[in-house]
Amino acid sequence: MSTLSIAKKYVELVSAHQNHVALETLFSPDVVSVEAGTPPGGSSPESRGIKAVAAKGKQWMENHEVHSAKVDGPWPHGDRFVVRFSYDVTNKPSGKRFQMEEAGLFTVANDKIVREEFFYPTEG
Amino acid sequence: MSTLSIAKKYVELVSAHQNHVALETLFSPDVVSVEAGTPPGGSSPESRGIKAVAAKGKQWMENHEVHSAKVDGPWPHGDRFVVRFSYDVTNKPSGKRFQMEEAGLFTVANDKIVREEFFYPTEG
Repeated sequence: MSTLSIAKKYVELVSAHQNHVALETLFSPDVVSVEAGTPPGGSSPESRGIKAVAAKGKQWMENHEVHSAKVDGPWPHGDRFVVRFSYDVTNKPSGKRFQMEEAGLFTVANDKIVREEFFYPTEG
Repeated sequence: MSTLSIAKKYVELVSAHQNHVALETLFSPDVVSVEAGTPPGGSSPESRGIKAVAAKGKQWMENHEVHSAKVDGPWPHGDRFVVRFSYDVTNKPSGKRFQMEEAGLFTVANDKIVREEFFYPTEG
């Protein structure tokens, strides 16, 4: 599969809220996922391996009520592609509702996503 | 300056169609600019040095009538940031009007943009 095919499949699945299917079918078992900043309560911006990435996603979903989530793109360049995410969510612990945008940069090797990096403003 | 400050300045200048000012003030003289594909009539997707990058921009402007150009973002991650471009242009040689979107990935070092990479679908 070309980078663009994988990228389109990714956008299709995530748009349909099938993130777990995207993870199981499009990602390498050894994927590395890197946040722009270290998450609250976390020790590193980096998660290694598909289990750690799935756990990070599950924890985020448990802590947020998602009112809407939109994915734009993909925009490819060689073995990488970019997408844009727009969220409207309520953080359950704080009860705060907020909108946020971020960009994702994905790297493909041997027909699997081997690296994902998320771009958004952080404090500190 | 932080990556985010440079990124915001970039978006501000490009939104005001001050691309040449952005190039002169925010970019390294040794900047490398990489397209997703080799441009028509070009020999490489890569331009090296601020003069080559300025010439590429000038050529593009001479060949397109810009009806609207929008820049979204920036979204930072460490020493890099992403923006999204949306264009509505007419290619002057062909007379064809088209809309296109792309993402830009910029890398900052020593307070200057040292690398820009453009993400969009290419044929072949």
